[in-house]
Amino acid sequence: MAFQFLQNMPLDEAKTLYLTTLLDHGFAPAEETIPVGEALGRITSRAVYAHICAPHYHASAMDGIAVRAADTFGATETTPVVLPPSQFQVLDTGDPIPEGCDAVIMVEDVVYEEDGSARLYAPAAPWQHIRQIGEDVCAGEMLLPSRTAVTPAAMGALLAGGVLEIPVYRRPVVGILPTGDEIIPPTTDPAPGQIMEFNSTIFSAMVQEWGAVPKTYPITRDNLDDIRARVAQAAEECDMVLLNAGSSAGREDYSCQAISEVGEVLCHGIAIKPGKPAILGCKGAVPILGVPGYPVSGILVIRELLQPLVEHLTGRTHAQVETAEAVLSRPVVSGLKYREFIRVRLGYVGDKLMASPLSRGSGVVTSFMKADGILEVPQGTEGYENGQTVTVQLLRPKAELQKTLVVIGSHDPLMDELADLFRLDGQFYLSSSHVGSMGGIMAIRRGEAHMGGVHLLDEKDGSYNTAFIRKYFPNGGVRLVECVGRTQGLMLAADNPKGIEKFADLDKEGISYVNRQKGSGTRILFDYLCKQEHVDGKAIYGYDREEFTHTAVAAQIANGSGDAGMGIWSAAQLYGLEFLPICTEQYDLLIPDNAWDTPMVQKLLEVLRSDTFRARLEALGGYTVNNPGTVREL
Amino acid sequence: MAFQFLQNMPLDEAKTLYLTTLLDHGFAPAEETIPVGEALGRITSRAVYAHICAPHYHASAMDGIAVRAADTFGATETTPVVLPPSQFQVLDTGDPIPEGCDAVIMVEDVVYEEDGSARLYAPAAPWQHIRQIGEDVCAGEMLLPSRTAVTPAAMGALLAGGVLEIPVYRRPVVGILPTGDEIIPPTTDPAPGQIMEFNSTIFSAMVQEWGAVPKTYPITRDNLDDIRARVAQAAEECDMVLLNAGSSAGREDYSCQAISEVGEVLCHGIAIKPGKPAILGCKGAVPILGVPGYPVSGILVIRELLQPLVEHLTGRTHAQVETAEAVLSRPVVSGLKYREFIRVRLGYVGDKLMASPLSRGSGVVTSFMKADGILEVPQGTEGYENGQTVTVQLLRPKAELQKTLVVIGSHDPLMDELADLFRLDGQFYLSSSHVGSMGGIMAIRRGEAHMGGVHLLDEKDGSYNTAFIRKYFPNGGVRLVECVGRTQGLMLAADNPKGIEKFADLDKEGISYVNRQKGSGTRILFDYLCKQEHVDGKAIYGYDREEFTHTAVAAQIANGSGDAGMGIWSAAQLYGLEFLPICTEQYDLLIPDNAWDTPMVQKLLEVLRSDTFRARLEALGGYTVNNPGTVREL
Repeated sequence: MAFQFLQNMPLDEAKTLYLTTLLDHGFAPAEETIPVGEALGRITSRAVYAHICAPHYHASAMDGIAVRAADTFGATETTPVVLPPSQFQVLDTGDPIPEGCDAVIMVEDVVYEEDGSARLYAPAAPWQHIRQIGEDVCAGEMLLPSRTAVTPAAMGALLAGGVLEIPVYRRPVVGILPTGDEIIPPTTDPAPGQIMEFNSTIFSAMVQEWGAVPKTYPITRDNLDDIRARVAQAAEECDMVLLNAGSSAGREDYSCQAISEVGEVLCHGIAIKPGKPAILGCKGAVPILGVPGYPVSGILVIRELLQPLVEHLTGRTHAQVETAEAVLSRPVVSGLKYREFIRVRLGYVGDKLMASPLSRGSGVVTSFMKADGILEVPQGTEGYENGQTVTVQLLRPKAELQKTLVVIGSHDPLMDELADLFRLDGQFYLSSSHVGSMGGIMAIRRGEAHMGGVHLLDEKDGSYNTAFIRKYFPNGGVRLVECVGRTQGLMLAADNPKGIEKFADLDKEGISYVNRQKGSGTRILFDYLCKQEHVDGKAIYGYDREEFTHTAVAAQIANGSGDAGMGIWSAAQLYGLEFLPICTEQYDLLIPDNAWDTPMVQKLLEVLRSDTFRARLEALGGYTVNNPGTVREL
Repeated sequence: MAFQFLQNMPLDEAKTLYLTTLLDHGFAPAEETIPVGEALGRITSRAVYAHICAPHYHASAMDGIAVRAADTFGATETTPVVLPPSQFQVLDTGDPIPEGCDAVIMVEDVVYEEDGSARLYAPAAPWQHIRQIGEDVCAGEMLLPSRTAVTPAAMGALLAGGVLEIPVYRRPVVGILPTGDEIIPPTTDPAPGQIMEFNSTIFSAMVQEWGAVPKTYPITRDNLDDIRARVAQAAEECDMVLLNAGSSAGREDYSCQAISEVGEVLCHGIAIKPGKPAILGCKGAVPILGVPGYPVSGILVIRELLQPLVEHLTGRTHAQVETAEAVLSRPVVSGLKYREFIRVRLGYVGDKLMASPLSRGSGVVTSFMKADGILEVPQGTEGYENGQTVTVQLLRPKAELQKTLVVIGSHDPLMDELADLFRLDGQFYLSSSHVGSMGGIMAIRRGEAHMGGVHLLDEKDGSYNTAFIRKYFPNGGVRLVECVGRTQGLMLAADNPKGIEKFADLDKEGISYVNRQKGSGTRILFDYLCKQEHVDGKAIYGYDREEFTHTAVAAQIANGSGDAGMGIWSAAQLYGLEFLPICTEQYDLLIPDNAWDTPMVQKLLEVLRSDTFRARLEALGGYTVNNPGTVREL
């Protein structure tokens, strides 16, 4: 198929076009009648009226005796009234009031005579202690209006009103169609070139959250006939169809043609990023949405284009998306041609909500997993500056964000273990971003983080951290907390095929190095070692190849796309790499004074000092643990 | 069984006692391993690490050609580099990078020669347009810490990391045991004295919302042996047990004894209202909670005492309950001995959140259905004053409350129909409280409502509403909007067995009247008619018996507990009553000026003027419809 040019339709225009066209074709919710006991969270499609009154009889509201109130008139402390057994009836709470009686006297207020008569010292008011017919529900009364979510209490009220079944919107069925030759079901051991099909799982879960029923079809191979047949089948069997991948305009992108042959294509190409190559199609009143293959693009496209359609059929109006004002920790640059959706991590530091943009790669599904919010950059806007206040859509409730410890700094797997132990009692959350030691120092200077991991070598005396802290915080305001000593060294391919014996071997011909990003403590250490060993770092092949974590470097080496990289023992261990130890460095935690007394930091310190943390470090290996949690002198 | 004296243990003390005792007995969450595809919303019980990298191979990020970057160095516009077909490979997005290549050039930047060579005008940077191994996920990296809710994106990240199953907290099973001789399953046609068992449905739905699995047992009859056996069975089969009703100390309340014989009773009687007779019991580590029979008591007891235990087992920490400051529209009086939980309706009028207390009857399940929030009155506090600012727990999100039209005033079934039509497009909500016409006027004077229904007869000239509005709003600030004319009359038992032919017959011997509450327009009309017809109203039997709605009055008459009551034609019709028409009155809507321009009031006016509303009124019957929605002159 030849290359097609994609449209660039503004998102709001595309949404309106899609919904109005579908409505013209008869797109409308369906109803069904279901038992009240199964209606939790469902949405009424019509008003529901009570069939009977509740209570449906006059019921005693107390344990006591039923009387005719008039028989008790005149009773006082001095002139009690005595009722013979024929003039009252003993009853319990909930019992029906006998014919002729119109009041209940509590058991505590009755004195029984020897002959069984009841002596009363006060008159009963008519209808006292009686739950009258209809006190709770009157027959014919509207119990629930249309489009109302059924709550547990409403289920009780419906049954009390004699309503055993109610009309609700039917849950729409969303067909999910994975396609592609290279696509395989999830596995623990994929071959190179095989792409695991996890988009269907994500999309299924999303439509479930919206109250629809996902129906995932088997993977369809990349050819027009098969895809066309599958789309036609799904459009018959479902209320909506998601055709995943092949939505772009590449060599094997058949989605657009398949949809146009089964139904019609309303628009191909939306001015959003990620998500541009979406296809808005339909067959009659059944929307067929072509979704890009990259997971983040797919998530955003179905959030923006499918969710409103699902809501139209479920009748469920989601409470408006919660938004908040946040301060950007880094600048965001965006193209003028698109409306861009940027995932951000959020954290309350002091009373400011700070937003840090996450990876913008649309293939990076973890960027959506880690996201606390979404920042939209409107079409025609170039972006935002560092420190600018922006409005973000929240993906987690504010209350949770307020309980989140924000850690920005150097990466070490121990931070994940710390996060896990920190989370175990369910009180607080921890969000950590890996931007290197210098990045952590800068984040804390800008007031964006509660804590950061640092390991910065002072080239003058070989000491760690303190010189940097004194330099970047000349007026104090921070504390440096001892964490661990850790062994840094060269991670090498298993069995060291290139025969690297010492640091200075790195500049040999044929050796491919994997470096860390600028500003990371490990990069600074590497540059220091180059100087010390008289190696021209910049001449090393791969010096400019940057990875952001120890594990990412180890992964490259383990997979043969690099021969050596600096890193810590535990990362090498994880990937079964050779390890050439070079030095032990001090990995500390930097905490601003104004965060020190927060319950989150105090909790973190408690975990840091715990035996369980020490045990986790031992399991990771390569650490020296003395007195973690101790404040260092600056 | 003899009367027992209940304890009065403060709630917080009881909660602590319960949890600590259970923990001592080994109360702890259980784990299970489930497929990632079924894990939506489940909570990880341990940290989850990636098994493989994602991408697990170097993948092309573009459609184009793979090259060795070094082969392209030096290419410029004037000195292009030409690569023979053996030195590059055509590939699509997602394809693996061939051995020996380390860069991808986009298809747009390649010019093919006739012999198939590729001409390049710019060099490729090493690793450009390649999604490197581990770009998204690195093997060994922690993907999710413990106690983390699984989201759709996390499911994708787990599968991408080769994780097909994860350890989660097992959903605890909550046994629900309905008991009682008078209890029957829900039906549309219960006999007097039969109590429909809808508590189990409410409680099941509640525990489902909390992530547990309800297991409802058949109804057990009221005798100690059966109840004891059932409790013992459920304690074996479930993680927690709710024993419903019989928790008090009446003639047939066996719960406490049954629990003490199966396990132990830690406390019987909590200082809360409603809910006092709760029983805190357990068998080993299985909590057995004795729950009072009245639904509202039951709901509050399991919210306060069961929910924290469920959360302990599910690992799910509910985001802190949302609270808000609200202004009380009516005073709240509470006993010193209890912590009281009062259901309130909430509404934003202007920028004030107003709270109106709902019925406090613990049998009134609709009071929980209608509640937007809960106001707690602490033990030792006498209550709050009218106009006081209080903190309320929200049961509905703020965003929903901000879209709710608050209607306080006279009751008419047409208000429900209006609410239904108003709700149909899903934009706004309507909350209406029936407090009579004068109550509505006062609510609007106090700024508590956006609208109120009024029908107030001026005894001087027989006119409606305008005189009252001028009197209570001497400075204006409100608009009176025409709604309908409606026929008021006497509702009489079917076939009129007491032979009531005219209003003046009401004071005859043997006639039982059902009145409306003070301040209601219908009560004022009744008093006016008494005067006009020379009837001594106060001498009528039942003059002091007050109901709050037309339907409630009709229900009493239909069920034979009253012979006559004033009301509207549609209410009489609903219950198949005789109707003696007396007059037509004007039912109008009062709207404060400052609410007039809100989208909610404008939407309401639109509905009021619609043909569908007119059709609904015709179906109800007894209304005269002229120009609803027209503003009357004052």
